[in-house]
Amino acid sequence: MKFNENYARLEKSYLFADIAARIRAYQEAHPDKRLIRMGIGDVTQPLCPAVVAAFRAAVDEMGEKETFHGYGPEQGYDFLACAIGDYYKEKGVQLDRTEIFVSDGAKSDLGNILDLFDRDNTVLIPDPVYPVYKDTNVMDGRKIVFMDANANNNFLPMPDEDTRGDLIYLCSPNNPTGAAYSREQLAAWVDFARKNKAVILYDAAYEAFVSDPALPRSIFEIEGARECAVEFSSFSKMAGFTGTRCGWTVLPKELKNGDLSLNAMWLRRQTTKFNGVSYPVQRAAAAVFTPEGRRQTGEQLDYYKENARIMADSLAKMGLSFCGAFHSPYIWLSCPGGMDSWGFFDRLLHEIQVVGTPGAGFGKNGEGFFRLTAFGSREDTMEAMRRFETLAF
Amino acid sequence: MKFNENYARLEKSYLFADIAARIRAYQEAHPDKRLIRMGIGDVTQPLCPAVVAAFRAAVDEMGEKETFHGYGPEQGYDFLACAIGDYYKEKGVQLDRTEIFVSDGAKSDLGNILDLFDRDNTVLIPDPVYPVYKDTNVMDGRKIVFMDANANNNFLPMPDEDTRGDLIYLCSPNNPTGAAYSREQLAAWVDFARKNKAVILYDAAYEAFVSDPALPRSIFEIEGARECAVEFSSFSKMAGFTGTRCGWTVLPKELKNGDLSLNAMWLRRQTTKFNGVSYPVQRAAAAVFTPEGRRQTGEQLDYYKENARIMADSLAKMGLSFCGAFHSPYIWLSCPGGMDSWGFFDRLLHEIQVVGTPGAGFGKNGEGFFRLTAFGSREDTMEAMRRFETLAF
Repeated sequence: MKFNENYARLEKSYLFADIAARIRAYQEAHPDKRLIRMGIGDVTQPLCPAVVAAFRAAVDEMGEKETFHGYGPEQGYDFLACAIGDYYKEKGVQLDRTEIFVSDGAKSDLGNILDLFDRDNTVLIPDPVYPVYKDTNVMDGRKIVFMDANANNNFLPMPDEDTRGDLIYLCSPNNPTGAAYSREQLAAWVDFARKNKAVILYDAAYEAFVSDPALPRSIFEIEGARECAVEFSSFSKMAGFTGTRCGWTVLPKELKNGDLSLNAMWLRRQTTKFNGVSYPVQRAAAAVFTPEGRRQTGEQLDYYKENARIMADSLAKMGLSFCGAFHSPYIWLSCPGGMDSWGFFDRLLHEIQVVGTPGAGFGKNGEGFFRLTAFGSREDTMEAMRRFETLAF
Repeated sequence: MKFNENYARLEKSYLFADIAARIRAYQEAHPDKRLIRMGIGDVTQPLCPAVVAAFRAAVDEMGEKETFHGYGPEQGYDFLACAIGDYYKEKGVQLDRTEIFVSDGAKSDLGNILDLFDRDNTVLIPDPVYPVYKDTNVMDGRKIVFMDANANNNFLPMPDEDTRGDLIYLCSPNNPTGAAYSREQLAAWVDFARKNKAVILYDAAYEAFVSDPALPRSIFEIEGARECAVEFSSFSKMAGFTGTRCGWTVLPKELKNGDLSLNAMWLRRQTTKFNGVSYPVQRAAAAVFTPEGRRQTGEQLDYYKENARIMADSLAKMGLSFCGAFHSPYIWLSCPGGMDSWGFFDRLLHEIQVVGTPGAGFGKNGEGFFRLTAFGSREDTMEAMRRFETLAF
């Protein structure tokens, strides 16, 4: 019996453990200091009332014989898939119901989608990056080529004549940089993918933060994307579902290779290795798309966006250079004075008791950068900025 | 870009689609006839009151800022993992908390566990079988060897001197046959696995139906199993969670191959490709283990077990030969008079309007057999048996 030896090639992930250890050491030495956490990309606002009401009603249904739901469709209930389809119509994107697969979150599907691809493919991944793209491919032993995302390209890598790759990860608005592709940029990627018979794995988990109507919120707003792209999205950030777990993946019918259709393969994968999302969770997710749900989740998004604006204003006033904040809950700060990521982390922790995430944890191009998130409370966000302003860089 | 060509080797799964088509055709021709469905292995009793109360309370927590839960641990919350650990203690099995991984159901984990194994392994799978074991390995291109389960071995295949395999699927009590391994039989499998450095993937999804204390309910009741077995289990059948989605997997620390520990690999897999089970669902699952929850789910299990007993009594009275019914919600009926599976299906549909599952759908050894389930209502179960008794075989 042989284990999958690729697991031995995974780098140990120490980032958040390292952060936790440094925080613990600091707090033990300074028990009187109050920390403000702007590190982890988790939401803090509760589920909105419309979602809670639908969630409760569905739980009650599960407790009565007449309204009980057993096994549901692995690809999600029609009521939710159709509501997601209607959400895409607002962006001018028409999807068939069978192209929408409800999932327990974008992370699961981003990992599991690789089941459908041969291990002999070259993968293009931006650096810095959400570590899941890299690790899931190391587990399969695929060749990975990193694309530099840095100040020279506004943290948005683009293909050129030397670019070669079969699977391309794009995340826009980006985690961790907050940078968002324009329509023209995405069109160039779609063009590249079609010419090279590559597949774009498009992570749209932060699309709800896009405010500028000129920016695309789905790759399927781009002509030709149906032939070359899969899109992953989630209720996590748009409606506070990080602990409730629901998302979706779109696989257009045109995405084929000879007789094999990626949509049909994914349906087979999900009906074989998945049993659908909890019925009450799907009812809760569907409530996000009701008029009440849209208004209430919109207010929460506005709250986080206002946090990001407050942060952007303060940091700009201090003369600091950063990416993100607009169209994203993330601010990707250039560490001032040539400080490295961990040096800046330590300085913020020790001098103003603000915790962020060292950019070096997201890849080599993250060195010298620092990620702050807008997911905290208004009070903490404002207090953190007041503390920032006391620093002399 | 290359797709995973193994998907082209999957046999199309027509079983339940074929059943649905035959039912539809019959009902269109006979709209006045009432069908009794004893085919699909889904529960019909609602979630019990203790589970609903905990589920609701957790949904309410999610709606308040002070009690909201964002991202949880990918391997499950301690409150649930520890309750599962206590459940194992009742069987005399001591598990470390870190050996228990909460999942969204056994089907997901049974599929995803294969990520941890090289594709160059030989897989032993019983025939007839839950199709997921086979299909997930075809997707990876592994060599599959089927083990005959038939009347000669009481539908419980055992290893002999010619048996060779690296990954061994055992499901006890079995789906579809309802047969359950004894301690001695499982000990022989554990012995085989240890001698051959094989891993047993043990599906215990139906363990709650075991009534006889002499029969094992976990493979970890067997000496040595910690070196060679992974166990998958689920709230689906023990507490009616087929639509609520929660299960667990046990990976003991001793299961190693050189430096690689399967437990550590699974932790890495889950933290990379999974984001944990919905917090309210985990609270609902934990309520199964409260005294109230145990009593209420026990009553539901007794209800289904009584259905199975009623069916067994009737079928025995009719002189029909079958396996299962005791320690299982399934009855694996030998089709009378040498009828084939689909012939028997059509006869039951047309003559008495009872729907079951043709055994041939579960593998070659299923031909000539027929699966009936005890998950219906008492009234339907009794009515179906009355109709059976009108048949002349």
